[in-house]
Amino acid sequence: MLGKYLDRVRQENPLIHNITNYVTANDVANMLLSCGASPIMADAPEEAEEITAACCGLNLNIGTLNSRRLDAMLLAGKKAKQLGHVVLFDPVGVGASRFRKEAAGQILQEVRPDIVRGNSSEIRALLEGSKALRGVDADQENLVCDTNLDQTVSGLRRLSTQLSAVIVQTGAIDLVCDAKNCFVIRNGRPQMRSITGTGCQLSGLVTAFAAVSPKEKLEAAAAAVCAMGLAGEIGWSHMEAADGNASYRSRIIDAMYHMDDGILDKGADYEIR
Amino acid sequence: MLGKYLDRVRQENPLIHNITNYVTANDVANMLLSCGASPIMADAPEEAEEITAACCGLNLNIGTLNSRRLDAMLLAGKKAKQLGHVVLFDPVGVGASRFRKEAAGQILQEVRPDIVRGNSSEIRALLEGSKALRGVDADQENLVCDTNLDQTVSGLRRLSTQLSAVIVQTGAIDLVCDAKNCFVIRNGRPQMRSITGTGCQLSGLVTAFAAVSPKEKLEAAAAAVCAMGLAGEIGWSHMEAADGNASYRSRIIDAMYHMDDGILDKGADYEIR
Amino acid sequence: MLGKYLDRVRQENPLIHNITNYVTANDVANMLLSCGASPIMADAPEEAEEITAACCGLNLNIGTLNSRRLDAMLLAGKKAKQLGHVVLFDPVGVGASRFRKEAAGQILQEVRPDIVRGNSSEIRALLEGSKALRGVDADQENLVCDTNLDQTVSGLRRLSTQLSAVIVQTGAIDLVCDAKNCFVIRNGRPQMRSITGTGCQLSGLVTAFAAVSPKEKLEAAAAAVCAMGLAGEIGWSHMEAADGNASYRSRIIDAMYHMDDGILDKGADYEIR
Repeated sequence: MLGKYLDRVRQENPLIHNITNYVTANDVANMLLSCGASPIMADAPEEAEEITAACCGLNLNIGTLNSRRLDAMLLAGKKAKQLGHVVLFDPVGVGASRFRKEAAGQILQEVRPDIVRGNSSEIRALLEGSKALRGVDADQENLVCDTNLDQTVSGLRRLSTQLSAVIVQTGAIDLVCDAKNCFVIRNGRPQMRSITGTGCQLSGLVTAFAAVSPKEKLEAAAAAVCAMGLAGEIGWSHMEAADGNASYRSRIIDAMYHMDDGILDKGADYEIR
Repeated sequence: MLGKYLDRVRQENPLIHNITNYVTANDVANMLLSCGASPIMADAPEEAEEITAACCGLNLNIGTLNSRRLDAMLLAGKKAKQLGHVVLFDPVGVGASRFRKEAAGQILQEVRPDIVRGNSSEIRALLEGSKALRGVDADQENLVCDTNLDQTVSGLRRLSTQLSAVIVQTGAIDLVCDAKNCFVIRNGRPQMRSITGTGCQLSGLVTAFAAVSPKEKLEAAAAAVCAMGLAGEIGWSHMEAADGNASYRSRIIDAMYHMDDGILDKGADYEIR
Repeated sequence: MLGKYLDRVRQENPLIHNITNYVTANDVANMLLSCGASPIMADAPEEAEEITAACCGLNLNIGTLNSRRLDAMLLAGKKAKQLGHVVLFDPVGVGASRFRKEAAGQILQEVRPDIVRGNSSEIRALLEGSKALRGVDADQENLVCDTNLDQTVSGLRRLSTQLSAVIVQTGAIDLVCDAKNCFVIRNGRPQMRSITGTGCQLSGLVTAFAAVSPKEKLEAAAAAVCAMGLAGEIGWSHMEAADGNASYRSRIIDAMYHMDDGILDKGADYEIR
């Protein structure tokens, strides 16, 4: 039962440090507030360590990366790990440039994040060094479906072992994996892809959920993924005739705002492999 | 009667220069538009002075501060003061890092803003050099209530005298204070805290209101604070069952869009001490 | 019939590289998604060329310009042109500072964009080197109306010839002009001006439309302008009593999400001069 992980966020109100892109920072902040966490966005190297020391989770996202923000990520990441805080890494568009690939390599090696969350192309780029051609979206060929599920899970387990991290790969089917177990999650709606930043928002959520359940990172991450997908389903059920992707964006955050453990327990759609 | 200050913004359509964080910049811009002002966001040192010279108010906000943005704030701030423009300073999360504390000190000393707006923890950090532990949100212990109101007002008067600035401290009770008088304002809804950036939006509003009433900064700031709180109340009255913090964000800006002097005069809930 | 240009965007799903301001980046991304394109925002010089090489259109916008973002624009712009990608330049607030004026000059000269889109003050500043006094909004004196239409179109033709670019000037009447022909477009609603970033969103749209119809840039740009204005009209028709500029913002993007070639063909209101 995953509802208790949301409950814990609402009770403990964790402060989450986000070093993230400016495209979706506002949505990430509102999504964190909607689940009961508190966001702080701060990306100057001058204050990265001090800010993260006062938080209990760190969310690193390389969309709109620049060199100073990368410096801040490395400083904050090492400090957070040293303090035992949960660190999540979101390798946005990692296949899209050498700059992002090298930054991702540096973050993985020097920070050693506890959780890595990306779409299938981003995760595959980490696994194989392959180049994603579609920027920040998943390539068609990398999509997970029932026929390639076992093979995909095997790859994620390998990556999880290699990185000593929980791997969260999102798409039509979401996978939350450590070296032993894999949550296969079927919540969500395909229309969520037509909103910018649902992945970034999920990374914020996963960080918050894991920050207050650091000994159950796998389960907490799975709960966050189910909660996001379920918010997408609930938000969709409230769509009116003229609503499109912009209204849908608000409705998903609104659905998270009203979600409690009972709703999440009832709506979470997953199996463990 | 505070409605006339809103009326003046709508009539004079002041151009407001904002050097602010990227998390809430869009909301600040839309809030300024909704009250009848025009926003320009520009944070490069190369153009800070020239941009602010063409405006009539300057809003400085140290969320997502970096060193170049700080340079721009100092350049724009000094130029604006030299030209007699109203300058507001929003010390976002000032207790959260040495970097922000030093930046705030520098801005207060070199720019000498006309108005300082923050939550109770931020204002207290300015007063006492105390360290806020909750990042950008107010600490529980710093909240204003009826029992500590007199003491809080005394502190704000001291700070106002010390800084030669109108002090705006927002929370469940909002206080707008100069060395002599204090507006005690009880508009607003607690749910506004679940939206990122309502404080930043208010700082934009206060700048716009004071920019067109520079000889009545205290009253104009109080009018802006009442207008924001009232927009929160009106927006809340339009909430539908499934609405959460994301929809509430839009409803507050929408309520400001429809507000006029009569609505503000009728809804403003304040006393002067 | 302009509907086919929208149809082509939905079919080809072009990836558009945006180097743009942080105030409206989220809205630009969601607007691109709503028309069937995919956005990538990336503004680091380290990756600008590589990112743009994987895209098929480039949107350069100098709101919140800084020196590193300008470097990225020049690098990406030259690479995109070299690869034959469509490049659009949006000279936001070009009259507001020497920094923006020089940046605009450099971009026009070194990149040679295919399309330039701005409001009447921005376009006039490019034409005459005149200084716009109202920041990012159009000056009253520069507004296009039926009495000065012929004269305005002549100026745009001259600018189009001079820059070898399609010129898109937006306002109450929108003009899309090359050296020979000018689309005079009367879609849209005056209330769109009360939302920050509708111009930035339009620049994203025009880039996407032209990227998949590179041999018909004039017509594709006109289609994007009609689509944006029409979305403004449709969004307005769905406004409820308490809705203001914040809700209107979402309703416009939502209207684009539901638009198809038939709706655009029927609603586009233009003549060719």
